[in-house]
Amino acid sequence: MSSYTQSIQNLIEQLASLPGIGNRSAERIAFHLLKQSTEEALRLADAIRDVKTKIRHCSICYNLTEADPCDLCTDPRRDQGLICVVEQPKDLLALESAGAYGGAYHVLLGHIAPLDAAGADELTIPALLDRVAGGNVREVILATNPTVDGDGTALFITEALKARCPGVTVSRLARGLPAGASIEYANRNILSDALTGRRQV
Amino acid sequence: MSSYTQSIQNLIEQLASLPGIGNRSAERIAFHLLKQSTEEALRLADAIRDVKTKIRHCSICYNLTEADPCDLCTDPRRDQGLICVVEQPKDLLALESAGAYGGAYHVLLGHIAPLDAAGADELTIPALLDRVAGGNVREVILATNPTVDGDGTALFITEALKARCPGVTVSRLARGLPAGASIEYANRNILSDALTGRRQV
Repeated sequence: MSSYTQSIQNLIEQLASLPGIGNRSAERIAFHLLKQSTEEALRLADAIRDVKTKIRHCSICYNLTEADPCDLCTDPRRDQGLICVVEQPKDLLALESAGAYGGAYHVLLGHIAPLDAAGADELTIPALLDRVAGGNVREVILATNPTVDGDGTALFITEALKARCPGVTVSRLARGLPAGASIEYANRNILSDALTGRRQV
Repeated sequence: MSSYTQSIQNLIEQLASLPGIGNRSAERIAFHLLKQSTEEALRLADAIRDVKTKIRHCSICYNLTEADPCDLCTDPRRDQGLICVVEQPKDLLALESAGAYGGAYHVLLGHIAPLDAAGADELTIPALLDRVAGGNVREVILATNPTVDGDGTALFITEALKARCPGVTVSRLARGLPAGASIEYANRNILSDALTGRRQV
């Protein structure tokens, strides 16, 4: 035997296929799991199985949820006439934990990336357009990332919404200096956004 | 909802308990598993379950194995009169892949660490002494790590073996300059080992 047994080798390969885990870390984790009691190690296996069987996308907003429709879409205290469009469930969570928003969401599950051949149809943009066209929506807030792909996606959605639902307000999150930053270290794009978006006081 | 659903939160916690994985990486991996097909994600869950059900310690050498006794202990082409003592299964694999050794092994499953209250009885040292005292062993090669704990463990085993099996040769791996290194950058301990262990040519 000059290598790991079949099942250890397989575990290491599965672990190494996870993002941010190289071969060395995978070996380390595999030996950690081997050292743990069976009960402890199986807790991770069960957690994976649990997530894959219980979690689905909400059929309205496409957020991850155990119940469909999700809590956010069925909450009567939330303003369902306001839809905040984000790229990923993680973005939604960031906005929720900021606690500054009380409307509904729509998760795109990605962004339009022409270079990766990821078009609008692979995202949940058609579902968003149907949802907004269905009425009862006053405003769509585009909260895609302030990146080239995020901006492109926002532009695409803006045009599609203006064409199909001309009565609905479309807005974007404000761009500018991040709170707590210093102008000295802000980069060109941030300063350019801050100047363009300046407000009279 | 201002946090992940229960099952996602649980998966993140389980992942974050692995060595070298912080909260951020755990989140990233959890979302990666959520994005994957169920089949792909369950491959990891199954790999963990597989390892925990199939892998055990060899009852002779304590290496990890699917069959007991392991291939190394039952291989007639290996010199079973020679036992190389290592701290961990990983050390055994490193020696095996170097291909320079053809004897048997004994895995301690750790080292004596007085500060962590890890004594000799928690390791497989009693089993090693019984095995050597059982006869048919000519030499025990101590291949613990060249560290304070490894050296201490080797010293403990040497004394125990000398007391119980005085006829058996006990040796240690050579210490000195690592092949390919430059003396300029070798540290004090390495140079001290190299001088102490110098050989007449």
